[in-house]
Amino acid sequence: MRAVENFPITGYPIDKELIKALGMVKKAAALANMDVKRLYEGLGEVIVKAAEEVIDGKMDEQFIVDPIQGGAGTSLNMNTNEVICNRALELLGHEKGMYVHLSPNSHVNMSQSTNDVFPTAIHIATLNLLNRLLITMNNMHDEFNKKAIQFDSIIKMGRTHLQDAVPIRLGQEFKAYARVIKRDIKRIEQSYENLYEVNMGATAVGTGLNADPYYIKSVVEHLALISKLPLINAEHLVDATQSTDAYTLVSSTLKICMVNMSKISNDLRLMASGPRAGLSEITLPARQPGSSIMPGKVNPVMPEMINQVAFQVIGNDHTISLASEAGQLELNVMEPVLVFNLLQSIRIMDNAFSVFTTYCLKDIQANEEQLKEYVERSVGIITAVNPHIGYEVAARIARQAIVEGKSVRDLCLQYDVLTENELDLILDPYEMTNPGISGNSLLYNE
Amino acid sequence: MRAVENFPITGYPIDKELIKALGMVKKAAALANMDVKRLYEGLGEVIVKAAEEVIDGKMDEQFIVDPIQGGAGTSLNMNTNEVICNRALELLGHEKGMYVHLSPNSHVNMSQSTNDVFPTAIHIATLNLLNRLLITMNNMHDEFNKKAIQFDSIIKMGRTHLQDAVPIRLGQEFKAYARVIKRDIKRIEQSYENLYEVNMGATAVGTGLNADPYYIKSVVEHLALISKLPLINAEHLVDATQSTDAYTLVSSTLKICMVNMSKISNDLRLMASGPRAGLSEITLPARQPGSSIMPGKVNPVMPEMINQVAFQVIGNDHTISLASEAGQLELNVMEPVLVFNLLQSIRIMDNAFSVFTTYCLKDIQANEEQLKEYVERSVGIITAVNPHIGYEVAARIARQAIVEGKSVRDLCLQYDVLTENELDLILDPYEMTNPGISGNSLLYNE
Amino acid sequence: MRAVENFPITGYPIDKELIKALGMVKKAAALANMDVKRLYEGLGEVIVKAAEEVIDGKMDEQFIVDPIQGGAGTSLNMNTNEVICNRALELLGHEKGMYVHLSPNSHVNMSQSTNDVFPTAIHIATLNLLNRLLITMNNMHDEFNKKAIQFDSIIKMGRTHLQDAVPIRLGQEFKAYARVIKRDIKRIEQSYENLYEVNMGATAVGTGLNADPYYIKSVVEHLALISKLPLINAEHLVDATQSTDAYTLVSSTLKICMVNMSKISNDLRLMASGPRAGLSEITLPARQPGSSIMPGKVNPVMPEMINQVAFQVIGNDHTISLASEAGQLELNVMEPVLVFNLLQSIRIMDNAFSVFTTYCLKDIQANEEQLKEYVERSVGIITAVNPHIGYEVAARIARQAIVEGKSVRDLCLQYDVLTENELDLILDPYEMTNPGISGNSLLYNE
Amino acid sequence: MRAVENFPITGYPIDKELIKALGMVKKAAALANMDVKRLYEGLGEVIVKAAEEVIDGKMDEQFIVDPIQGGAGTSLNMNTNEVICNRALELLGHEKGMYVHLSPNSHVNMSQSTNDVFPTAIHIATLNLLNRLLITMNNMHDEFNKKAIQFDSIIKMGRTHLQDAVPIRLGQEFKAYARVIKRDIKRIEQSYENLYEVNMGATAVGTGLNADPYYIKSVVEHLALISKLPLINAEHLVDATQSTDAYTLVSSTLKICMVNMSKISNDLRLMASGPRAGLSEITLPARQPGSSIMPGKVNPVMPEMINQVAFQVIGNDHTISLASEAGQLELNVMEPVLVFNLLQSIRIMDNAFSVFTTYCLKDIQANEEQLKEYVERSVGIITAVNPHIGYEVAARIARQAIVEGKSVRDLCLQYDVLTENELDLILDPYEMTNPGISGNSLLYNE
Repeated sequence: MRAVENFPITGYPIDKELIKALGMVKKAAALANMDVKRLYEGLGEVIVKAAEEVIDGKMDEQFIVDPIQGGAGTSLNMNTNEVICNRALELLGHEKGMYVHLSPNSHVNMSQSTNDVFPTAIHIATLNLLNRLLITMNNMHDEFNKKAIQFDSIIKMGRTHLQDAVPIRLGQEFKAYARVIKRDIKRIEQSYENLYEVNMGATAVGTGLNADPYYIKSVVEHLALISKLPLINAEHLVDATQSTDAYTLVSSTLKICMVNMSKISNDLRLMASGPRAGLSEITLPARQPGSSIMPGKVNPVMPEMINQVAFQVIGNDHTISLASEAGQLELNVMEPVLVFNLLQSIRIMDNAFSVFTTYCLKDIQANEEQLKEYVERSVGIITAVNPHIGYEVAARIARQAIVEGKSVRDLCLQYDVLTENELDLILDPYEMTNPGISGNSLLYNE
Repeated sequence: MRAVENFPITGYPIDKELIKALGMVKKAAALANMDVKRLYEGLGEVIVKAAEEVIDGKMDEQFIVDPIQGGAGTSLNMNTNEVICNRALELLGHEKGMYVHLSPNSHVNMSQSTNDVFPTAIHIATLNLLNRLLITMNNMHDEFNKKAIQFDSIIKMGRTHLQDAVPIRLGQEFKAYARVIKRDIKRIEQSYENLYEVNMGATAVGTGLNADPYYIKSVVEHLALISKLPLINAEHLVDATQSTDAYTLVSSTLKICMVNMSKISNDLRLMASGPRAGLSEITLPARQPGSSIMPGKVNPVMPEMINQVAFQVIGNDHTISLASEAGQLELNVMEPVLVFNLLQSIRIMDNAFSVFTTYCLKDIQANEEQLKEYVERSVGIITAVNPHIGYEVAARIARQAIVEGKSVRDLCLQYDVLTENELDLILDPYEMTNPGISGNSLLYNE
Repeated sequence: MRAVENFPITGYPIDKELIKALGMVKKAAALANMDVKRLYEGLGEVIVKAAEEVIDGKMDEQFIVDPIQGGAGTSLNMNTNEVICNRALELLGHEKGMYVHLSPNSHVNMSQSTNDVFPTAIHIATLNLLNRLLITMNNMHDEFNKKAIQFDSIIKMGRTHLQDAVPIRLGQEFKAYARVIKRDIKRIEQSYENLYEVNMGATAVGTGLNADPYYIKSVVEHLALISKLPLINAEHLVDATQSTDAYTLVSSTLKICMVNMSKISNDLRLMASGPRAGLSEITLPARQPGSSIMPGKVNPVMPEMINQVAFQVIGNDHTISLASEAGQLELNVMEPVLVFNLLQSIRIMDNAFSVFTTYCLKDIQANEEQLKEYVERSVGIITAVNPHIGYEVAARIARQAIVEGKSVRDLCLQYDVLTENELDLILDPYEMTNPGISGNSLLYNE
Repeated sequence: MRAVENFPITGYPIDKELIKALGMVKKAAALANMDVKRLYEGLGEVIVKAAEEVIDGKMDEQFIVDPIQGGAGTSLNMNTNEVICNRALELLGHEKGMYVHLSPNSHVNMSQSTNDVFPTAIHIATLNLLNRLLITMNNMHDEFNKKAIQFDSIIKMGRTHLQDAVPIRLGQEFKAYARVIKRDIKRIEQSYENLYEVNMGATAVGTGLNADPYYIKSVVEHLALISKLPLINAEHLVDATQSTDAYTLVSSTLKICMVNMSKISNDLRLMASGPRAGLSEITLPARQPGSSIMPGKVNPVMPEMINQVAFQVIGNDHTISLASEAGQLELNVMEPVLVFNLLQSIRIMDNAFSVFTTYCLKDIQANEEQLKEYVERSVGIITAVNPHIGYEVAARIARQAIVEGKSVRDLCLQYDVLTENELDLILDPYEMTNPGISGNSLLYNE
C-alpha cells in the first residue's frame, strides 16, 4: 500500500504479461525451494497454487502499483509476494495478513531477491510478447510479398530525390518492403539469445548469497517447463544482474524496424496522395470518413497510425537507453521505466501491424493507368538512351524536353541521333526495369 | 465505432483534461453559431447542455477511441460530436442515433473542422495541466529554498569530477537547485504565450472556409470565458493550423526541467549513499522497505522515481519532435501521438514532483558530523593556501599529503611555509565558502 | 602536450570563436587583477598584449587540444594559459617556457579556475555565433516573406493528409513559413538572457575562493567592454558554475527551429517533385547536375541539405541533453562535448541557411498553370458546397465524383441541388481562401 | 567546384577511409567494364592507375566537398570521377579537363550511378573502420579480463541503489564489465553480414539499367579482391539501393556499446571518487594536472572522456535514425549526413578506447584496505543472517545497527540470536560472494 501512495505516477496498470511472468517465477521458486527442502511442502504447495492463479490472470486487479516506481521493482515484487501469500493463506484456511503462518518475505520470496525475480520476469514477458509480435510481423511480411507478386508486372516511374528517375516495377518496390521486414524479423529473433539467460539465484547483487546452488539450477529448470521457453541459467550472475544490454538490444531492433516501417508508410502515403492533386499511384482502402468538414475525403489513416507508433517506439528506445545508461555498480535501479517502455513498444507494434495488415495492406490497389501515364510522359527514360548517344548529348536533349514539354523520343528523332526502330528497342520500359543496357544489341553491333 | 476497431493500439484512455477541453470547444462553437444565427436556438441550447456534461466529466467513459490514432484527431472529434449529439437528442426527447433531428456533422461540428477543434482543445488541456504543474513546481521550489536556508551554515566538502575540491555550504547547493527550478518555472511560463493563440475558425486548412468571420471572433471569446483562459484568435490561421512549434516549445521546456531534475536527483542519491560504505552526507526519509532480501535496507526511491520520470519525459520529447517534423503542407497529421506524449509528460511530472516534495524533500536531513569530517581531512583546502605560497609549492605539498596521508596544515608547518596563526586565518572553512582570498589580510600586508 | 596525447579523439580543431573568447577572458582577468593590485603592471600588460593576439586569431594553430577531452576544459584552459604565457615571455624578452619569470598558473590564470574561465568563454562564443546566425535567419525570413507577397494571388489546392482538401493561396503557405521562422528567431533571442550572466569569479566551485570581490566585479566589466556584449555577473556563482541549462535552452531553440525547417524543406521538395511524375507545383533553381547517370536530372539539393543539417542539430541536441544531465554536484565535467555540439549546431545552421537563401529560396518559381489545374479538377471544393446542401448529400456527390472521374459542379447540376448561378458564387476559388461561407448570401437569403 | 560553393557546411574533410573506398570502387568498375569490353583497355588502364593513387591516399587533398551535402553523395561521386579522370588524363599526356579524351561521366562512372557507388563505398569504409575498432575493443576486453583476475580475491561492499548491499569481489565487478564488452564485440560482428552485400550494378534505382549483368557480377568480384573483404552482390538491388538498415544496425550496436561503456565509466569514476571525501575504492592513474586552481588535484579524465564519446555516439545514432527514416521511394538522399555520423562514431570509439586502455585501465589499482574496511563496518551483511533468524528479526537488528552505529555481529550476540561460532561461519565475507547460504551447515542441522 505504501508503494501505491508513493508512486501515483502514470496511472497505467502493470502489463498483464509481466504479472503472469511474476506468477511463473514465484511458482518455480516454490518448487525449487521444496526440491532443496528449504520450504515445507505444506506451504510450498499452496504458494504454487496461488501463483498459478496469478499466472491465469485471476489476480490482475490486485497488482496496484504503478509501472514507474522507485526501488528497482521492489514494490512490484513485494506486491506479488503479498498477493500470493494472502491467497495461499486463504487456501490454508487462514485470514489474509496472518503472516505468522506464511510470510511473503520468508516463504514466498525464499531464496529470491527483487534483483533476480524482476529481471527474470521481464525476460519471460518480453519473450512472450515478442513471440506474438513475430507472428504478426510474419503475416505482414507475407502480405507485402503477395503484393509484390500481384504488382510484379506493373511498370511505374522510379523516383529518386522525389524527382523522376527511371522506370521500375511496383512489385519491385513491394518486394523491397517485404525484404527489409524479413531482416527486421531476423534481427528481433537474434535478440532472443540474451533473453533466454535468466539470473534466478543471483539474489541481491549476483553473488547468489542465500541461494542454494542446487536451487539455482532447479528454479530455472522449473521455470523453463512452466513458461515453455528454453530458459537457461545466466553464466555469470553478477553480470546478468547489473547489465541491461539484453533490453537495449531488443529495443534497438524494434527501433530499427519502426524506422523502416515509417519510411514504408511515408511511401504508401505519398503514392496514395490525391485523388486528383497528388500522385494517385495506388489506392488505400477507405477505413473511415476522413474529415468532419470535407465530405468524401478519405485519409490514409492506417499508415499514419504506423508513423505515430514508429515515433512512439523510437522515443521509447531513447528512454530505454537513458535508463540503461543510468545503472550503477551492482544494479540498474531504473528497470521499471525501462520495462514499461519496452513492453509498451512490443505491444503497440503488434497491435499496429495487425490492423495495418488486415485493414490496409491486404487491399491496396494499383492505379495502373496513372502509373503507366507517368512512365510515358517521363523524361527520365533518357537514361536508357545515355549509353547510345553519350551523357553530354543526352543531357542537352533531356533539358530541352523538360523546358519545352516535349518527349525524349521526339527530340531524339528530331536531332536524328537514333532511328524509330532503335528507339523502340531502347525505350521498352519493361526492359528498363531489369539489369542490362536497353537496346544492348545495338551497342555491341556498332 | 469504426475508429475503435481501427486503432486498438495503446489501450489507454484519452486524457480527461482533453475530453473536458473538447466539451468546451463544442459549447463555445454552438454559442457562436447561435450568435451568427446559423444554428437554431432550439438545437444550439441542447448542444450546449450536452457539451457541459462532457465538461463536467460525465461522459468520460463514452470516449472510447485510442490516444494513438490515424487521421489527425478526426476519430476523436467525431467521437465527441456523436457523444454530444446523442446526449442532445436525448435531451430533446429523441432516441440516440436519430441524426435527422440533429446531426453530429452538420450541427455539433458546424463551422468547425477537426483541424481547428483538435489543436484548440490541445491548447486548453495543455494550459490547464501546466497550470497545475506550476503550482506543484512552485511548492517544490519553495521547499528547496527552505532547505537552502536550513542548511546555510553547514559546511561540507565541495566536489568537482567527484574529486575533493574546496569547501562549500550545503545550503549553497540547495540554493543552486532552487534557482535552476525557478528558471524552469519561468521557461514553462514563457511557453504559454503561443498556447493562448487558438485557431478556431481555421476549419480545414486555415483559410476559414465555411466559417463566418463574426463566428471566428465570437467562438474564441466564448471559449475564453468558458475556459477562464486568456485565449485569443491566432493572427494567421494557416500558420496556426499547420505549425506545431507551440507544442515542441512546451515539451522542450519540460525536457530541460527534467534534465535538471535528473541531475539534482543524482546528487541527492549520491550524497545519501551509504549508510556505511557511501558518502552519507544527507539522509533521505525512509519510505518503504528497500529490499525483499536485505533487511533494514532503505533505498532512495523518491529520487530514483524522479530519474525515471526524467527519462520518460526526455523520450517523450523525442517522440514529440519526430511527430512535429512529420507535418506536411497544411496539416500535421501526427498530432494524436504528439498530444498523447505531451499531456503524459506534464501529468507525470506533476505527480512525481508532488510526492517527491511531500515524501522526500521536506524531510531531508544533513549528517553534520560526517560533513564536517570530510572537510577536516580534505586536501582540497590547499587551494586556499595557493595564493600565499604559489601553485608549484602548493602542488608539491598537496601531493605529499595525499600520498602519505598527512594533513595540509601539518605539512605547511613542517616545511615552514606558513605559521600557525597564518594557517588559522587561511584555513577557516566558512571563510572559504565566500568570495575572496582566505587570509587576504596576510597577502596585502606583504 | 599531455592533453594532446591523452585525447586524440575527433581530430577536429577547437572552434575559432571559442579561442577568441578565451583570449578575451584572459585579457579581462589580467586587467582586473591589475585593478586589485594582485598582478604587477609589468606582467599584466604583456599578458594583455598576448591575449589580444589570441583574440585576433594569430595563435589559432597553437590550440592543439581536441574538442572532446576529459577534465571539464582544463586542458583547453591550460593550453590557453601556456600560449599566452609563452607569448608574453617573448614580449618580455625571455625564452618560451621560462615560467620563473611569468607563470601560466600563478599569473595568467590568476584569480581564475577552468570552472569559471571555460563556461564564460562558452557564453561569449555562443553569443557571437548566435548573433551571426540571427542575421542570416532574418535574411531568410525576409526572403520567405517576399515570396509570400509574390505568391499571394496564386491559388492552389490545399492538402491535408497528402489528400486534396480545399483551395489555399501559395502566398499563404509561404507566409506560414515566414511566421514560424519569425517565432524561431524570437525564441533564440529569448535564450540570450541566461547567456549574458557569466560566472567569472566563481573559481573552483562557485564560492569565489581566491577571487577578490572587487576583482569579480571588475573582470566582468572589462569583459563586457572587450566583447561588446552586455555581460553581467551571475547572481549566484555556485548555481552558475554547476548549471548548464543556459546551453540546453539554446540547443532546444535550435532544435525547434530545425524541426520546423525540416518540415518546410520537406514541403518544398514535395511541391517541387516531378518534373513530370510529381506534383510540379514549384520549381527550385538548378544548382548542379543531379545525377551521374541520368542526364538532365535536377535534384532539390538545397532543401535536402537543410534536412540533413536538421538531423545533425537534432542529434546534437540529444548529445547536449545527455551531457547536461551528467553534471554532478559542483560541476558539469561533460562541458567539452556539450560546447563542441552547441557551437557546431549554430555554425552549420548559419552556413546552411545562408546558401539555402541565396541559392534556392530567392529563385523559387511557382508553376501557375499546374497549380490552377489541380484546383479545377479537384473534388475537395465540395467542402464549399457543404453548408448549402448538407454534409450527407455532399459526401455522396464527392464519392461519385471521385469514383466516376466527374466534376463536382457537373454532379451538383445533374442532381439539381444547386443552379449554375449559385455554383458560380459558391465555387469561386479565391473566395474559398478567405474566412467565410462561400456563397454566404445565398445561405442567409434562404 | 559548384558543390563546394553549394555546401560550405561543416568545414570538415571527407573521411579518408571513405575516399579510399571510392578509389576501390572506381578501380573495380574500370576492370569490370574492361571485362565486358565496354571500356577500351587504353582508357581503362589509366583509370585503374589513377584510382590506385586515390586508394593510396595521394589525392586526399583534392576531395574538397563537405561531408554534409545535398544530392545523396552525387557531389562526392562526381568529385571522385573528376579527380580520377584528370589524373588519368595526365597519365595519358593530356591536360586536365580535356574531357574529350576521357570523360568523368561516360568513362570513369561507366555502368555506375552515385546510388550504387556511394553506398558500396560506405560499406567498405565502415567495414575497414569496424575491423580496426574490433581490434581495439578486444584489447580493451582483455585488459578488463586481466583486471578481473588480478582483483579476484579482493572483497568489497556490493551496492545497489548506491546503498550498502552485500559483499562482492572487485574481480567479479571487472569480470562483469569484460563480459558485457565481449557481447558488444559480438553484436558489432553480427552487423557485418548486411555490410558484405553491396549494390554495385544497381545504377539509378536498383533495376540495373545500363549495367551489363556480367559486369554486375564481375565488379563485385574485383572489389572483393581489391578490398580484401568478402563482399558479395546484394540479392535484390532495389532493396539494397533504398534500404539503410545495414547502417542503423551498425549504429545501434555502437550505441548499445557506448551505453554500456558510459555505465562502466560512471562506476569507475564513482569508485575512484575521493581521495578523502569519496569512496576511494580504486585509484586511477594520474594523467594530467586536474585543476588550474587546485594544486595536487587529479581528475578521472579518461573515463570522463569515455562518457563524452558515449554521448556523442548516442547523439549520432539519433541523427542516423532520423536520416534513415527520411528515405523516400527508391533512394535515401540523406546518406551523406548518415555516413558522416556513422564513420565518426566508429573512429572516435576506436580512438577513445585505445587511449583509455593504455593510459587508464591497465594501471587501475585497488585500495584494498579501504575496500576491506567498508565490508567490516557494513550492516548489509545482515542479509547472510537472514535465513538463520528470519527477515523480521533481522530487519529490527539492521535498523538498530544503523541508528545506533553498532555492528550486526555485536547486536546478534547481544540479543543472543546467534553464537560467536555461528556468526564466524555465517559472516565469512568471502563465503558471501559465492552462491549458497552462508553457514548453510547450521541451517540444515536444525
